[in-house]
Amino acid sequence: MTLVAIPLFPRFTALDAVGPYEVLQRIPSIDVVFVGSRRDEMRTENGMLGLACDATFDDVDAPDVVVVPGGIGTRELIRDDGGGAIGGWLRSVHPTTAFTTSVCTGALLLAAAGLLDGLTATTHWRAAEVLNDLGARYVPTRVVEHLPQRIITAAGVSSGIDMALRLVELLVDRQAAQAAQLLIEYDPQPPFDAGALAKAGEATLARANEYLQARP
Amino acid sequence: MTLVAIPLFPRFTALDAVGPYEVLQRIPSIDVVFVGSRRDEMRTENGMLGLACDATFDDVDAPDVVVVPGGIGTRELIRDDGGGAIGGWLRSVHPTTAFTTSVCTGALLLAAAGLLDGLTATTHWRAAEVLNDLGARYVPTRVVEHLPQRIITAAGVSSGIDMALRLVELLVDRQAAQAAQLLIEYDPQPPFDAGALAKAGEATLARANEYLQARP
Repeated sequence: MTLVAIPLFPRFTALDAVGPYEVLQRIPSIDVVFVGSRRDEMRTENGMLGLACDATFDDVDAPDVVVVPGGIGTRELIRDDGGGAIGGWLRSVHPTTAFTTSVCTGALLLAAAGLLDGLTATTHWRAAEVLNDLGARYVPTRVVEHLPQRIITAAGVSSGIDMALRLVELLVDRQAAQAAQLLIEYDPQPPFDAGALAKAGEATLARANEYLQARP
Repeated sequence: MTLVAIPLFPRFTALDAVGPYEVLQRIPSIDVVFVGSRRDEMRTENGMLGLACDATFDDVDAPDVVVVPGGIGTRELIRDDGGGAIGGWLRSVHPTTAFTTSVCTGALLLAAAGLLDGLTATTHWRAAEVLNDLGARYVPTRVVEHLPQRIITAAGVSSGIDMALRLVELLVDRQAAQAAQLLIEYDPQPPFDAGALAKAGEATLARANEYLQARP
C-alpha cells in the first residue's frame, strides 16, 4: 500500500486537502491519513467546517506521499523559524517520501521547512511574494514538478485536483489516473473564465480583495 | 445572511460536500452549516475522513439553500420509503428554500424525497438508472437547473464546484461568482480528458469499474 499523509493545522483551506484526498482515495492501493499535532478536529479558516485528524505527526513517521494544504493559518506557522512542528515533521519525513507536495499556500510551509530553497514553485496567486521571501521562486503555473527532488507544488485551492491526477499517474499509471478522473466525473465546465489572475478582470480582482477582507 | 445547509450521512463523498462549501463560504454574506441526524462526526465511504456535523436536522429548519452530497451511503437511505430522516427533512425545508440542490448521488435523495418527480435531473453517471427508477429523468448534463421549481442537480463529485459558482451568481451576482472562482483559482487544467463517460475509453471504464469493486 501507498500511504498518503495530509497534515492539517488550524485555519486550513478545506478544498486544498479534500480535492487531492478525493482523487487519491479512489485508488485501492492508496490509503490516506489526516495528521496533526494532536488527534483532534481541525477547523477551517472561518470555523464553519471541522475535519478529523486521525493521527499525530509522531504516529506517521514514514508516509510515502505528503500533500500539504494551505490556508490563512499558514501565516502564523511560518512566523516560527523552520515552520514550527509541521516544518520539523516535513524535514523529517521528506528524505524517504516518493513525493512531497503542496496545494495553495501549503507551499509556504514547504518553503519554511527549507524544502524549496532555490526551486521554482507555485502557490495561491496572492502569496507569490511571501513564497519568494521564503527562498523559492514563484512561477504562475498550475502545477510545478521537480521529479529529481520529488517535490510538486500546485497553485491555489482547486489546483490540487489537477496535481493529484498527475500524482496517481506517477504512483500507479496513466490508466489509474484516468479512472480516478472518470470516477470523480472531473470534466470541468466552469460557467465563467475568471479562475486565474491573468484572466480575471480588474472588477473581479477588486471584488475578490473585498471578500478577502471579510473572509481571509 | 444566506444560510446554506449541507446534510451529511454515513458513507458520503467528501468532495461532493466540500467543493460547494469552498465556493460558497468565500462570499461574506453566505454562511454554511453541516447538518446531520446528530451533532457528531460523519465518515466518508472508506472511513478515511471524518467531517463534523455542527447541527441536527431539527436545529436547521429553514435554510435558504440546501446542497445534498452523494456517496454510496445514499443507497441505504433510499431503501427507506421517502428517504428516511434526511428525506423527511428535505420535504420539510424545500418549500421555503431559495434553491434545493444536489451533487452526484445526492440527487437520489432528492428523488426519494419526491422532489424530482417527472423532472430532468443529473447525477453520477453510474447512478443514472437508479435515479430514473426513483421518478426523475436522467440527462447526462453537468448541471441541470429548474429555476421555477428552485431545484438544481449536478453530475458526479467534482461538478458541485461548477454548480456552486452558478449558485453564487443566482444568490448574489456574476461578479461575486467570478471573485469566488478567482479566490479558489479554479482554472482547471486536468492532465487527461477522461472525466465524462462519453470521453473515457473502454479501458478507463474497465479500470474504474474494477476500482469500484474495491472502493464503492
